[in-house]
Amino acid sequence: MNQPTRTELAALGEFGLIDRLSKGVQLFHEQTLKGIGDDAAVLDLGGQLTVVTTDMLLEGVHFDLSYAPLPHLGYKAVAVNISDIAAMNAVPRQITVSIAASNRFSVEAIEAIYSGIKTACEEYKVDLVGGDTTSSRSGLVISVTAIGQAGKEKLTYRSGARPGDIICVSGDLGAAYVGLQILEREKQVYMANPDMQPQLEGKDYLIQRQLKPQARMDIVYELRELGVQPTAMMDISDGLASEILHICKSSSVGATVYEDKLPIDGVTYTTAVEIQLDPTTCALNGGEDYELLFTIGQNDYEKLKNHPDVFFIGYINEASKGINLITKNENRVPVRAQGWVHF
Amino acid sequence: MNQPTRTELAALGEFGLIDRLSKGVQLFHEQTLKGIGDDAAVLDLGGQLTVVTTDMLLEGVHFDLSYAPLPHLGYKAVAVNISDIAAMNAVPRQITVSIAASNRFSVEAIEAIYSGIKTACEEYKVDLVGGDTTSSRSGLVISVTAIGQAGKEKLTYRSGARPGDIICVSGDLGAAYVGLQILEREKQVYMANPDMQPQLEGKDYLIQRQLKPQARMDIVYELRELGVQPTAMMDISDGLASEILHICKSSSVGATVYEDKLPIDGVTYTTAVEIQLDPTTCALNGGEDYELLFTIGQNDYEKLKNHPDVFFIGYINEASKGINLITKNENRVPVRAQGWVHF
Repeated sequence: MNQPTRTELAALGEFGLIDRLSKGVQLFHEQTLKGIGDDAAVLDLGGQLTVVTTDMLLEGVHFDLSYAPLPHLGYKAVAVNISDIAAMNAVPRQITVSIAASNRFSVEAIEAIYSGIKTACEEYKVDLVGGDTTSSRSGLVISVTAIGQAGKEKLTYRSGARPGDIICVSGDLGAAYVGLQILEREKQVYMANPDMQPQLEGKDYLIQRQLKPQARMDIVYELRELGVQPTAMMDISDGLASEILHICKSSSVGATVYEDKLPIDGVTYTTAVEIQLDPTTCALNGGEDYELLFTIGQNDYEKLKNHPDVFFIGYINEASKGINLITKNENRVPVRAQGWVHF
Repeated sequence: MNQPTRTELAALGEFGLIDRLSKGVQLFHEQTLKGIGDDAAVLDLGGQLTVVTTDMLLEGVHFDLSYAPLPHLGYKAVAVNISDIAAMNAVPRQITVSIAASNRFSVEAIEAIYSGIKTACEEYKVDLVGGDTTSSRSGLVISVTAIGQAGKEKLTYRSGARPGDIICVSGDLGAAYVGLQILEREKQVYMANPDMQPQLEGKDYLIQRQLKPQARMDIVYELRELGVQPTAMMDISDGLASEILHICKSSSVGATVYEDKLPIDGVTYTTAVEIQLDPTTCALNGGEDYELLFTIGQNDYEKLKNHPDVFFIGYINEASKGINLITKNENRVPVRAQGWVHF
């Protein structure tokens, strides 16, 4: 075939590719309120609004079966989708699950994945309503689509942040990334010497954050109880820095974030230092924390100031002031995304 | 890990695996009217009922890039999902598309896939509302989820067929399977001698049926215009025999199908004979035709009898009479499913 131009996927990156592919996408139905461009699509199918999101996990890219237990993997595949529903301030209702596996996997292995899927369904109260099971030539693939609902006034988009809003995160950051480094290190040790026992004592928290992340539906429910409506929200899957840039771009605003306000767990901090990583970089660019990043109006601060899981890390400012991190020694540096580079 | 039992996926097959995995799936929401077990799940999200279906296509399992053009592949990934929406007698509204590709694919290649996806979106009037793009270690994976809607009284399930109903199909059968055999044959010839030109003259119809199948939304709209409400319906993806068995099992009925009534296109017939395949077997077990198989009450026969695309191939009988094919020489043989064996 005549192929005059070849652009490498790596040259565009995931977001560049999405931008390019989204061009020329037509919408035919008035009921499609929001298509590509937020944590989930928003549909008006009658009654409450419906949100839809989908995420695919591939062996060798998103997980490594040499340390990811199959039930955790099933759980995570659901949780990362529920996290996108949570990021819309919606309540998850149904999921579909498609799994492709080669004959290297037994029926019992697939059942082990499903046991984790079912645990997640029970925990987040979602109905597994369909899917597809098929063979694969090599790796394991899990694709989940989640459907949720919320009243129009409850939904949160990335575009609602306004200057003066306070930037909040729902939990500590960087642990999932540091956990992954520890798992990778122990895998290398094991491959070099299979008799060595993995040294994971005291790292349970980091490993659990990597292998079995929770979707913060509890925060969604608590914000409702406290009468707090976030002005913008998304979940932190690619790293705090990347997500702050997304919110600022969508909302046409800037932001100021304080390094000394970034919530970093003690074990994350000491382990990062131990393996010669900068804890702040792990918190900013680690990714896979699946905490919620949201902005609130200042008059909602009182309602949240004593919440044990909510950290106030900065504020939204005019776009002209840029998107900056104030470091511990009071330098102002622009926030840059590193995030996950898939391609 | 201690693994006392290992059951091979091939020992259960796709349907056996689905049955096993579906056990213990709890439904929490009243709005989930139908979960696993039909062409699509049915949800009551308010207003009309919502149907949801998902299908994943993998390189080397569902398609071969040595003869499947990328735009056709994108089109087919959408069409097979729309076909499931059509099988519920519903109207498609939105899709999400997830694609995983390795760096062997260029941005232009992914755009070519998307051009086919967009063509299908325009043709079936569906909104592409989201998805996921990620890397893959080897093959290409496309996962599509489709959402549709229909009034409660319009939806068709597999379970509604009653003794006396007439069994209909919306078009000729076996062409997609024979098309695949021709493509595979030419691939072998080409691999043995790359200078040979592929001999595909006169086989356009077969090849198009394999590479770019249509979802029969036109039939869904025409049945509505004619005032015909099928009693049961599904799409023919695994082969007519397999689908008839599904409808009979879900509806607790039997069926009688006449070999001489099976619609087989002339080119399909002669090509099957040419490559030493039995045309009837191709029609019964070939699969991937994506025609609609449906049953109607006898009083609807008059409305459909002159429809050029609707073929009447038999009738539903009591379960006790079994599920039989009346051959051309008037033998009665039980219908058996061969279908696609993925594992």
